[in-house]
Amino acid sequence: MLATFATFPIGKGESVSSDVARVIKIIRESGISYQLTPMATIIEGEWDDVMDVIKRCHHVLKENSDRVYTTITIDDRKGHDEMMKTKIESLKEKLGEV
Amino acid sequence: MLATFATFPIGKGESVSSDVARVIKIIRESGISYQLTPMATIIEGEWDDVMDVIKRCHHVLKENSDRVYTTITIDDRKGHDEMMKTKIESLKEKLGEV
Amino acid sequence: MLATFATFPIGKGESVSSDVARVIKIIRESGISYQLTPMATIIEGEWDDVMDVIKRCHHVLKENSDRVYTTITIDDRKGHDEMMKTKIESLKEKLGEV
Amino acid sequence: MLATFATFPIGKGESVSSDVARVIKIIRESGISYQLTPMATIIEGEWDDVMDVIKRCHHVLKENSDRVYTTITIDDRKGHDEMMKTKIESLKEKLGEV
Repeated sequence: MLATFATFPIGKGESVSSDVARVIKIIRESGISYQLTPMATIIEGEWDDVMDVIKRCHHVLKENSDRVYTTITIDDRKGHDEMMKTKIESLKEKLGEV
Repeated sequence: MLATFATFPIGKGESVSSDVARVIKIIRESGISYQLTPMATIIEGEWDDVMDVIKRCHHVLKENSDRVYTTITIDDRKGHDEMMKTKIESLKEKLGEV
Repeated sequence: MLATFATFPIGKGESVSSDVARVIKIIRESGISYQLTPMATIIEGEWDDVMDVIKRCHHVLKENSDRVYTTITIDDRKGHDEMMKTKIESLKEKLGEV
Repeated sequence: MLATFATFPIGKGESVSSDVARVIKIIRESGISYQLTPMATIIEGEWDDVMDVIKRCHHVLKENSDRVYTTITIDDRKGHDEMMKTKIESLKEKLGEV
């Protein structure tokens, strides 16, 4: 399944990109497929693997913050692996770009 | 922590309220604190308990659908239990209603 | 249509309920149908009315903050007015509670 | 400000990529800065311009569907233009990749 998530501390100052960097390190070291975007991180895998990564990201922020806000969106389609790649390809095909 | 989530099948027809009813039954039987709203369900508990309930809700829909979409928002505040109750109360206080 | 939204400043300190109170005042004075929940505010109306309220809420927070984060979810169903009331009723009916 | 949004019909069948293609055409013709991701589209601009594009995308889907679901997340930071580019750059810098 494909999941997009964003996690950040509330109340620690306006710039949260150093926290984001800590989160990215966890994602990388997990070995899960991922894609950074300016608004959220997209990851792909089985439910438990995806949620384990998000849980660790959320809690690494909580070590240094009293309040953490996390949003997750899941698109889970039977028989569709590698949606991170195929969704954009299918779209380009429909737009006549392939 | 407080979490709000919505889960629904895509492509099974416009009315999804019978699916929602199956989801609510899982939530009730879990014993977790919850509140229904017209747009999502709010639950409160520890990370693992919250995510276990959402996982089961997501997958009960997947039994009868090839595609399931789930959104989750988490507000996790240190030292704040029973936020489901206290957040509204704190708000009413500020509005001068208490 | 039905919309749920949450808006808060990032980086102004952990407690944001006084900001939330300012937001609620705008919603009330707008006359739009609304329901407070511990995680978000639900409003119902036509697209332009809904978005006008959310825009004003977002910008009242920006007056005192350098960064504002807002999430909006819209459920727009043809021929369904008063979904704020009927969605919960339809659900209760399916759960055998009516 | 930066906004990420996803809009799709509920109940029209599992594959919604042709609808997504119609949405992308609107975004392109609007001239607004955008980036496609496998889960959502990110756009950048002033509040009214951003919301005008999202409104038109939502309603082009409603022409052929009785129910449309749209999610929007806004990150609005004073004095920060071109966040679509700078957020990823700032991140890479912190990760020691620049």
